[in-house]
Amino acid sequence: MGNRKRIAYYGERGSYSEQAAMQHFGKVGKLTGFRFLPEVFEAVRMDADYGVVPIENSTEGPVTQTYDLLLESDLKIFGEEIVRIEHCLIAKPGTQIRDIKNVYSHPQALGQCRSYLEKHRFNAIPYYDTAGSVKMIRDSALHDSAAIASRSAARLYKMKVLAKAIQSNKSNFTRFMIISKEGSIGKCDKTSIAFGLKNRPGSLFNVLKCFADNGVNIIHIESRPISGKPWQYNFYLDCEGSAEDAMIRKATSSLRNETIFLKILGSYKSA
Amino acid sequence: MGNRKRIAYYGERGSYSEQAAMQHFGKVGKLTGFRFLPEVFEAVRMDADYGVVPIENSTEGPVTQTYDLLLESDLKIFGEEIVRIEHCLIAKPGTQIRDIKNVYSHPQALGQCRSYLEKHRFNAIPYYDTAGSVKMIRDSALHDSAAIASRSAARLYKMKVLAKAIQSNKSNFTRFMIISKEGSIGKCDKTSIAFGLKNRPGSLFNVLKCFADNGVNIIHIESRPISGKPWQYNFYLDCEGSAEDAMIRKATSSLRNETIFLKILGSYKSA
Repeated sequence: MGNRKRIAYYGERGSYSEQAAMQHFGKVGKLTGFRFLPEVFEAVRMDADYGVVPIENSTEGPVTQTYDLLLESDLKIFGEEIVRIEHCLIAKPGTQIRDIKNVYSHPQALGQCRSYLEKHRFNAIPYYDTAGSVKMIRDSALHDSAAIASRSAARLYKMKVLAKAIQSNKSNFTRFMIISKEGSIGKCDKTSIAFGLKNRPGSLFNVLKCFADNGVNIIHIESRPISGKPWQYNFYLDCEGSAEDAMIRKATSSLRNETIFLKILGSYKSA
Repeated sequence: MGNRKRIAYYGERGSYSEQAAMQHFGKVGKLTGFRFLPEVFEAVRMDADYGVVPIENSTEGPVTQTYDLLLESDLKIFGEEIVRIEHCLIAKPGTQIRDIKNVYSHPQALGQCRSYLEKHRFNAIPYYDTAGSVKMIRDSALHDSAAIASRSAARLYKMKVLAKAIQSNKSNFTRFMIISKEGSIGKCDKTSIAFGLKNRPGSLFNVLKCFADNGVNIIHIESRPISGKPWQYNFYLDCEGSAEDAMIRKATSSLRNETIFLKILGSYKSA
């Protein structure tokens, strides 16, 4: 990381993706936030060196749009980063917690704080970004509204923290993917693969068997519906090792007989 | 279905869950809508005979809260129903499409119509229910807003259809689960099972192997994060056959060695 890399991240300044970018690249990067996930992919395709996008939260599950974008795009997964997520309830200075009626945030964050919101009978209103909802309330006249975002977003926008650690699970993490035009060149111990199954009984089992027979350990598997083909799914699989390893090469080459397509999304160093 | 069964469904009158309920039970049921998914489960636990809840859309994927509720609750899956989803853009009579700025609907419906909304540069505002958003606009003074819901919701609330079939995929279906205190007693050709894996390499493969070895065909598999246990997952699996069949009984009994828990959610007739 000698020179200043251009890094595109999801959300406004103060978003958790920005936090993941800083955690991964340190202070060497020139960071730019984008409001929508496809814009991050487009920025990396055009002129940014890296993109940082959330893929999965340990409480709420997958960020489905990121999975879809990884499959559509020609970009590679370059790395991953895990950020501990501690949500705060944030409002304008002078606002008290008893004034709050509406709470704005990203749907994932609202979901992670569901029991807190229900206990206080707040209305949960989805917004495109956690930090963006803090900025929106700062720039509005809303004294009955709060946002859910990180403490650093509150600090950045000079807003007041009304409550801390309001997520349902104290142990709450989000996994981010670092994407780039070219894959990682360092030592890789994790590989992400997407594939579509042949439409016949036992095909998922046969795919997993290709990995088991070659001694490759599967870390996680996720399915996503195929657009326009009801009840058919693409699968995403994370396994241990690099796509260059003989074991994975043997597994993926035998996989080609069982799948209609197979795409190596990238090999990278696990977080 | 001799007497009038009490049926609890998700959403307001005119919701797609109500449509699924009518499709499944015909005119014999006394139908009541509930605003939140846990309320439908609670109603069936208390005094309703059946509940009708969405579990999966062919474009947007799983309704994750339904998966979580099926696992927590003691209710059984009694049946399934598939409804073709044709979304309309619906507003107050007198409103023109050029007046519309904001569009309200359930997040799943907004997701299914994402390209239409982006093309028209409408603001997508999540609301708790499709039909509920039609009712809300009818009862409001909003002349710059529309809802996304079914044509029958527009008819029911005497509202105007501004555009038809606005979902991104013409072939758009939602699968609903019929839940009850007791399981189905008729002929069953599909079984849903939830399980947690032992935390060791190859455990998912070993589970699928139990099914394959006993000739049981797996239709679909879905994973959901375990609350408070980062990067650990429960799995949900649909397979062909009834839990009473010898093949499935053999598969699930050998499964007990590979899993930390195993729950038969129900056997039922596939839609």
